Amino acid sequence: MSSIDTKLNDLGITLPTPAAPVANYVGFVRTGNLVIISGQLCLGTDGKMADAHKGKLGAEITPDVGQQAARLCAINLLAQLKAAVGDLDKVVRCVRLGGFINAVPTFAGLAPVMNGASDLMVEVLGDKGRHARSTIGVAELPLDACVEVEGMFEVQ
Amino acid sequence: MSSIDTKLNDLGITLPTPAAPVANYVGFVRTGNLVIISGQLCLGTDGKMADAHKGKLGAEITPDVGQQAARLCAINLLAQLKAAVGDLDKVVRCVRLGGFINAVPTFAGLAPVMNGASDLMVEVLGDKGRHARSTIGVAELPLDACVEVEGMFEVQ
Amino acid sequence: MSSIDTKLNDLGITLPTPAAPVANYVGFVRTGNLVIISGQLCLGTDGKMADAHKGKLGAEITPDVGQQAARLCAINLLAQLKAAVGDLDKVVRCVRLGGFINAVPTFAGLAPVMNGASDLMVEVLGDKGRHARSTIGVAELPLDACVEVEGMFEVQ
Repeated sequence: MSSIDTKLNDLGITLPTPAAPVANYVGFVRTGNLVIISGQLCLGTDGKMADAHKGKLGAEITPDVGQQAARLCAINLLAQLKAAVGDLDKVVRCVRLGGFINAVPTFAGLAPVMNGASDLMVEVLGDKGRHARSTIGVAELPLDACVEVEGMFEVQ
Repeated sequence: MSSIDTKLNDLGITLPTPAAPVANYVGFVRTGNLVIISGQLCLGTDGKMADAHKGKLGAEITPDVGQQAARLCAINLLAQLKAAVGDLDKVVRCVRLGGFINAVPTFAGLAPVMNGASDLMVEVLGDKGRHARSTIGVAELPLDACVEVEGMFEVQ
Repeated sequence: MSSIDTKLNDLGITLPTPAAPVANYVGFVRTGNLVIISGQLCLGTDGKMADAHKGKLGAEITPDVGQQAARLCAINLLAQLKAAVGDLDKVVRCVRLGGFINAVPTFAGLAPVMNGASDLMVEVLGDKGRHARSTIGVAELPLDACVEVEGMFEVQ
């Protein structure tokens, strides 16, 4: 068992089957030592989005639930990353996360929501999980997801 | 005639003159084997944005029109890409598309709109056109465009 | 004194201490010859966001103030970049800027606001400062900042 797989196990995290794109795009593309991963919605490990994760921060979604949703997005990023490289021990660094928070125009507490994704990355990958990030509040997300996170990773 | 030019010809697509930036930025930058392309608005082949492509999904813009606008953005990306590499046969892969949909806060049907760009990429480039992608609904776009798409490509 | 430092001096620009992330992310990540910089808010050189830079374009923020805020974001990007490479003369190119403008849904004059960042980049870096860029209007930004700009640079 690789050390990252052991870590995931210790944390009680089971990576889901990566979401299959439903159109002419793919979950990830590798170019050189970079893996670029499509924006991941807050799907659960069963591949479905809970109704509790649909809606907007500042309206029906509380900051705590938003943070949990961001954590799910990060787990889905790791699932795509594992599909890309086979063994997560080959990950050199999480280079960047882009966080899109479905928010009403007055909800400025966006960073704590996105921390759900950033924290998960560091819990699993340690210092390799520390990344550059941009967090923005958006008008709407596909399927009314409350959070979407995209990622760029350097790999061996 | 290169094979991609032939394909464009078969599809009846004429690449426009790439939009000239009107400020201190450029249409694309090449770094190593990557070409990073500025967000392209849904300008027609005449370089102008049709009034029918101004506005928001979920209001005056229907999903079908939005999809056509996304297709135009993708054509403008290819025009920039051709300016960057000269010959589109040098394209190794469409690495990533970022889709920004000008949408009212309740319009969650964003992915089908963005498919207009993804489909065009695969129609023209085949499997090399399959990309990672992120799609978000935004509050507003420059010139009230209904769609903007940015791109990253690997080239020879 | 490096030539870029001299230029900053001539322009009367003092780079602030780069903003320290307050969570599990970092200001920048270097991968190969690329430096990816976290979205920078319009913090002043004292590291604080002026109340005058909180709010939305199209509401309490005028285009002129928004442009000044975008310029501050760009200065903060350069501060991060200097922390990444030590000497700004090692910068090969500003590859990409992503501009996020906190805007009401009817404010389509987004490009002139973002020019505040693009112009600063070219003032300081010359032709190396010309970049690909994407500009979008977003529903909200962290701390209600009126502008956030992220960056990608090629360095020696």
